[in-house]
Amino acid sequence: MTETLIKVDLDQPATQNEQVHNRWHPDIPMACWVNPGDDFILETYDWTAGAIANDDSADDIRDVDLTTVHYLSGPVGVRGAQPGDLLVVDLLDLGAKEEAPWGFNGFFSKKNGGGFLTDEFPLAQKAIWDFQGIYTSSRHIPGVRFAGQIHPGLIGCLPSRELLNTWNDRELGLIGTDPQRVPPLANPPFAATAHMGKLTGLARDKAAAEAARTVPPREHGGNCDIKDLSRGSKIYFPVYVDGAGLSVGDLHFAQGDGEITFCGAIEMAAGWVHMKVELIKGGMAKYGIKNPIFKPSPLVPNYNDYLIFEGISVDSSGKQHYLDANVAYKQACLNAIEYLTKFGYSPAQGYALLGSAPVQGHLSGVVDIPNSCATLWLPTQIFDFDINPSAAGPIKHLDGSIDLPIAQDK
Amino acid sequence: MTETLIKVDLDQPATQNEQVHNRWHPDIPMACWVNPGDDFILETYDWTAGAIANDDSADDIRDVDLTTVHYLSGPVGVRGAQPGDLLVVDLLDLGAKEEAPWGFNGFFSKKNGGGFLTDEFPLAQKAIWDFQGIYTSSRHIPGVRFAGQIHPGLIGCLPSRELLNTWNDRELGLIGTDPQRVPPLANPPFAATAHMGKLTGLARDKAAAEAARTVPPREHGGNCDIKDLSRGSKIYFPVYVDGAGLSVGDLHFAQGDGEITFCGAIEMAAGWVHMKVELIKGGMAKYGIKNPIFKPSPLVPNYNDYLIFEGISVDSSGKQHYLDANVAYKQACLNAIEYLTKFGYSPAQGYALLGSAPVQGHLSGVVDIPNSCATLWLPTQIFDFDINPSAAGPIKHLDGSIDLPIAQDK
Amino acid sequence: MTETLIKVDLDQPATQNEQVHNRWHPDIPMACWVNPGDDFILETYDWTAGAIANDDSADDIRDVDLTTVHYLSGPVGVRGAQPGDLLVVDLLDLGAKEEAPWGFNGFFSKKNGGGFLTDEFPLAQKAIWDFQGIYTSSRHIPGVRFAGQIHPGLIGCLPSRELLNTWNDRELGLIGTDPQRVPPLANPPFAATAHMGKLTGLARDKAAAEAARTVPPREHGGNCDIKDLSRGSKIYFPVYVDGAGLSVGDLHFAQGDGEITFCGAIEMAAGWVHMKVELIKGGMAKYGIKNPIFKPSPLVPNYNDYLIFEGISVDSSGKQHYLDANVAYKQACLNAIEYLTKFGYSPAQGYALLGSAPVQGHLSGVVDIPNSCATLWLPTQIFDFDINPSAAGPIKHLDGSIDLPIAQDK
Amino acid sequence: MTETLIKVDLDQPATQNEQVHNRWHPDIPMACWVNPGDDFILETYDWTAGAIANDDSADDIRDVDLTTVHYLSGPVGVRGAQPGDLLVVDLLDLGAKEEAPWGFNGFFSKKNGGGFLTDEFPLAQKAIWDFQGIYTSSRHIPGVRFAGQIHPGLIGCLPSRELLNTWNDRELGLIGTDPQRVPPLANPPFAATAHMGKLTGLARDKAAAEAARTVPPREHGGNCDIKDLSRGSKIYFPVYVDGAGLSVGDLHFAQGDGEITFCGAIEMAAGWVHMKVELIKGGMAKYGIKNPIFKPSPLVPNYNDYLIFEGISVDSSGKQHYLDANVAYKQACLNAIEYLTKFGYSPAQGYALLGSAPVQGHLSGVVDIPNSCATLWLPTQIFDFDINPSAAGPIKHLDGSIDLPIAQDK
Repeated sequence: MTETLIKVDLDQPATQNEQVHNRWHPDIPMACWVNPGDDFILETYDWTAGAIANDDSADDIRDVDLTTVHYLSGPVGVRGAQPGDLLVVDLLDLGAKEEAPWGFNGFFSKKNGGGFLTDEFPLAQKAIWDFQGIYTSSRHIPGVRFAGQIHPGLIGCLPSRELLNTWNDRELGLIGTDPQRVPPLANPPFAATAHMGKLTGLARDKAAAEAARTVPPREHGGNCDIKDLSRGSKIYFPVYVDGAGLSVGDLHFAQGDGEITFCGAIEMAAGWVHMKVELIKGGMAKYGIKNPIFKPSPLVPNYNDYLIFEGISVDSSGKQHYLDANVAYKQACLNAIEYLTKFGYSPAQGYALLGSAPVQGHLSGVVDIPNSCATLWLPTQIFDFDINPSAAGPIKHLDGSIDLPIAQDK
Repeated sequence: MTETLIKVDLDQPATQNEQVHNRWHPDIPMACWVNPGDDFILETYDWTAGAIANDDSADDIRDVDLTTVHYLSGPVGVRGAQPGDLLVVDLLDLGAKEEAPWGFNGFFSKKNGGGFLTDEFPLAQKAIWDFQGIYTSSRHIPGVRFAGQIHPGLIGCLPSRELLNTWNDRELGLIGTDPQRVPPLANPPFAATAHMGKLTGLARDKAAAEAARTVPPREHGGNCDIKDLSRGSKIYFPVYVDGAGLSVGDLHFAQGDGEITFCGAIEMAAGWVHMKVELIKGGMAKYGIKNPIFKPSPLVPNYNDYLIFEGISVDSSGKQHYLDANVAYKQACLNAIEYLTKFGYSPAQGYALLGSAPVQGHLSGVVDIPNSCATLWLPTQIFDFDINPSAAGPIKHLDGSIDLPIAQDK
Repeated sequence: MTETLIKVDLDQPATQNEQVHNRWHPDIPMACWVNPGDDFILETYDWTAGAIANDDSADDIRDVDLTTVHYLSGPVGVRGAQPGDLLVVDLLDLGAKEEAPWGFNGFFSKKNGGGFLTDEFPLAQKAIWDFQGIYTSSRHIPGVRFAGQIHPGLIGCLPSRELLNTWNDRELGLIGTDPQRVPPLANPPFAATAHMGKLTGLARDKAAAEAARTVPPREHGGNCDIKDLSRGSKIYFPVYVDGAGLSVGDLHFAQGDGEITFCGAIEMAAGWVHMKVELIKGGMAKYGIKNPIFKPSPLVPNYNDYLIFEGISVDSSGKQHYLDANVAYKQACLNAIEYLTKFGYSPAQGYALLGSAPVQGHLSGVVDIPNSCATLWLPTQIFDFDINPSAAGPIKHLDGSIDLPIAQDK
Repeated sequence: MTETLIKVDLDQPATQNEQVHNRWHPDIPMACWVNPGDDFILETYDWTAGAIANDDSADDIRDVDLTTVHYLSGPVGVRGAQPGDLLVVDLLDLGAKEEAPWGFNGFFSKKNGGGFLTDEFPLAQKAIWDFQGIYTSSRHIPGVRFAGQIHPGLIGCLPSRELLNTWNDRELGLIGTDPQRVPPLANPPFAATAHMGKLTGLARDKAAAEAARTVPPREHGGNCDIKDLSRGSKIYFPVYVDGAGLSVGDLHFAQGDGEITFCGAIEMAAGWVHMKVELIKGGMAKYGIKNPIFKPSPLVPNYNDYLIFEGISVDSSGKQHYLDANVAYKQACLNAIEYLTKFGYSPAQGYALLGSAPVQGHLSGVVDIPNSCATLWLPTQIFDFDINPSAAGPIKHLDGSIDLPIAQDK
């Protein structure tokens, strides 16, 4: 039986678990140690460590304290790992903890976090997804069921001090260009809610004051939110500190490319990761690696009939943007949402679906000035009914009686 | 035998072919007419109509006159089509003309067109690809062979006058924000090299002066450069004028997501499209369609073992950008190119390969401030040798004796 | 949390578990009851209920008592199910019990069970496979690792008395054509080792004397050994008795088409099935169903690079058979085994691999007198090294120091 | 432009084309010669060389003279090829001749050829399929359309004299066990209708008297009727004579596993093969090759939603057969045909569809005495309507007004 090196107790505050942390800093002590070649299991909290409930109110989404996220399990020390190595991580399997077969997807309020389409969806909303074996469905979004592609939204190794400084410099620089912006351009260090694992006292305070927040993906991987880092995949991580310090969390049962709803995928209430680690000594230089590279799993849902929506970099007001792939992808998303309303879905249901289902987002054209072209690939086989166009026109399959809970701003 | 409604003669200038045009304007007369339900064949020039030769010099790439592109076959009038309808186009098959089983991929000079990585590759370069049945390979990029996914880079219906005005207004507005920029922010109308099909005399001159250039994708589709619009796919186009006016050109034998090299995919020297058209009356409103939607083909290369590169929105100089997917995708591309050099490819070969091969580009994360995360999916099965990482390190399979021709700026 | 309706204790003999049985008979009492729409979990023994050990001896394979198999969990009664209905079973998930992450594959002695290639492999041999998350590998077959496709080898509903009589009549009739044959043409009822679930006393004895053995697949499904009934698939079973009486067992971690080694797939030491049941009332007549039909899972390993071996119905001695697909498939298997020896595998390793890995077996040609043509599809991506042919010839990657344990006949 | 080495003229009898033959014999002179590394095109007749018309009568199917088939293009001599080599054939592309975009599928009369289900379908019937680009549909089978997977039904190298003798010995031996059988157990040499390519006079007569018929697949490949030898695949053929002598014909636009209707797939009226040849010297011994091996194409239709039918080796009369995969596959086919009738198809339409569409046939279980289990995989995505089971029961989409033409026996 594979050993579980880190356990989480949903009845215990994550901040009391010394094998959990919510910041990146080289001084965070290893939570445990393994050898190259070992396989082991880490349990994980949801990214908010229990702030979101399995209920029909979006108040918790509205009120979430985003300075506390993401709660990560680790860091795992790997004996012999040195800066410049590649840490090869096999995601052998991932799953939900037996007592928590559910997850959530939410849109944050524009005043507290926002999301990709926050201008169109400015208020907090929430959808709950239940897991039935490999499948999931939501009581808030009828007519849809699909196989999960479980993956960690967040995984990576501890930064070196030098790398941490680089991060802080460039992100504080960006914030400085518009310091009053809501939402902010980036999240600066914030010591009050930092949980630094085993680190305590002055050492904790000093590190917490400069520790990087976990929200953005960075050179080490981190919060990449790549739906394809799923069970069975293999990842090659740069190593920056002795022992590597691998941490993982923010497990998703499924996600669409972009994690557009920000809260974001189907966030698993509690999960576990079975992984194996190995080293390629000096691998960063050998392969010219700056960011992680990875190989996908041989075991991913084979939905292959798609309805594909295009978007170009002209925004909803008609304004022309110059090769802006974000604008193009937003338009593709809005086009898909509009289309889904013709079958009876509310716009919020459409938005939540694009964030949760195995939707692909492609950078289809990036050079044809002035318009980027992005495509959103919606798998048709996840619907209980036919959503293809026909000469007869669309059929409304839903009567509008069910929708996502919403929370007015306070 | 299916009728070929538009033929192209590679020995005749495209400007002498009345069934070809290189601008968008509602006054361009239909080149021919068909009925809903008809299937027919259109032949096509390459997008430059013969400006690029099958040789080992990149001078023609450097010297190309981009005001002349793209030469399109059409417009095809569809009887009964009216504004507000959807024109359903089945791409039944596409191929190379028998006498021209080759294509080209190029990087334009930064002074004349540029490309996605023009800062890194500022000079004109070219790679020639030969077709062998369903496969292609290049004498300029050894060790690679793959099955094509033939598609039109450019396809769409004529704009209405109102839509044309919208395009001109917003694009000229953008140009006006930095009118001296090289390369320009967008391409304004340019009458001198406009080829307006059957339109002649004053009517031609008037229309040419305001006709939209073909470079950007727009609401009608147009130059989407979506590699997935391949043979066997089905597209639903908005109709803006009576008769629809469907035109097509810029055939690609294969392309990576983004068409990053701008000249761009494997541009087919001469091709043909076998298509079928049908109408969904009033389909735009019925389905809430603004941009085309489409369904992919059941017949696409099944390469499924990928090496995936990540990029974040921190540029090569270390500068932090705010959720800029373009920067992220550029970094993913550069990471892949750097990796390929470890196996012996030149950076230019790597760049050309990413533009030509069936590479996927995903908008993996778009909300984790301040970093976008883009992923580039490189299929490993197109290489003659193993390009996966291993503990032993990479093997140089190429000795550097072969590279893409380059042309110094004049 | 999903309820586990049937539990198995590996330390308890299966014959003491009243929710387990090893024969088919309409009088076997329901082990538990559920409602249409319910989902629930059943745990399962391996098909021999513990007769085979995780060790390096094949003696247990040689000595197995085949009158005792297969131990099935059930029957599960479904309220409202009546003869003529279809029982729709969703295999929501399957897995190994945490304490038993391993399985076995074996060849029976020709004197006790045999197998598809028993003439070539007449002695008992065994390979142990370890599970690492979604993957498996064997210490007895180096150089191979692949993702499992977990499925029940055996699943189906209780027969009616009439159907049972039909089975017994036709199988005893076949046995009667050559009653002394070793191995026998079929297995007759055998009361001594029958485990009839909750049935006891005279009722048990009476039923045991006529209960059908579990080895063959029959109209109800049963021991189909179809590798594609994997997690995520949906099966439509004919119902013959009130309550349906669904039983399941013989879980396989993976299997090649045909289960050619008979003991056979990777037989899971202990597993669980999470399933959901629903009814289509009168579905047998509505859809003209005689045997089960099913839909595959969207989540199966996507190995797609195959090396394909042909076999025709001329046997190894050169004898011509008339359109005999079995002979053709045997030849395809032998051709694959011979090929694998060129890379260093022993014939026994090759045979075990074809039984265990996700190999496809196709009835490619069945009408071209006198030769059937069968093809065996070996996925190349499960090997650590390249097994494709090349001009340079094969490389021996294995030195022969490792092989499957073998047991001489007593 | 690739050279076409063998051309066929549909207005000329195949027997007048010296580059065509319909028997296997080592003395047939090479029709042309190529070098290893060459690619070239061969045109092909349909397997009957024009005996079947694009009309609505099945008389031609009933009256076909099966001693004349199959007309093959070749043999192509490959310089340097010697017995014991492997001839590596890349099927670079295949297609229909422009003037013949159609094919046929037929059932022979039980009195003249028969088929897999000839007991159920004893009379000659025919379906015509039209090609529209990559797709095909039939005016005789409404509601179905799918992408082709073009392949040669027949391809292989000339046998040596020794191999020819082996074939004749074993097949005549089989015929001798029941020489009066109708249909016969195998087809003996038949000189009268033999077309021996360039061979004339006495040499022709002598060879014709002993030349092997082309119907069965044999060691050299030959009439394998493997649907997966499609464009883009690579085949490794044993070489038995100097120059190899590669011949090809019997092109199919698509076929189901087994080619159950015998006439059989969608037989292309006229086609062409673009292929490339290379050698692996001494490859037969190096790789232990007896029958051809091959690798599938990366470009095959990706239909992946299947409805799967099981069959066991109990025939329609209820008779128990011992591990007979043919009986099992017949039952799976009959089960599928019965199911399709519930949606309005005639049994003949069902049978024709299973022979023509990309249906898979798997040898799912081959060891569970006494029942083989075969599965037939019917892709659901080829139908215009939903053919999945549902609680509501099937919908008749066809009114029975259209069926396959039938010809009464004379």
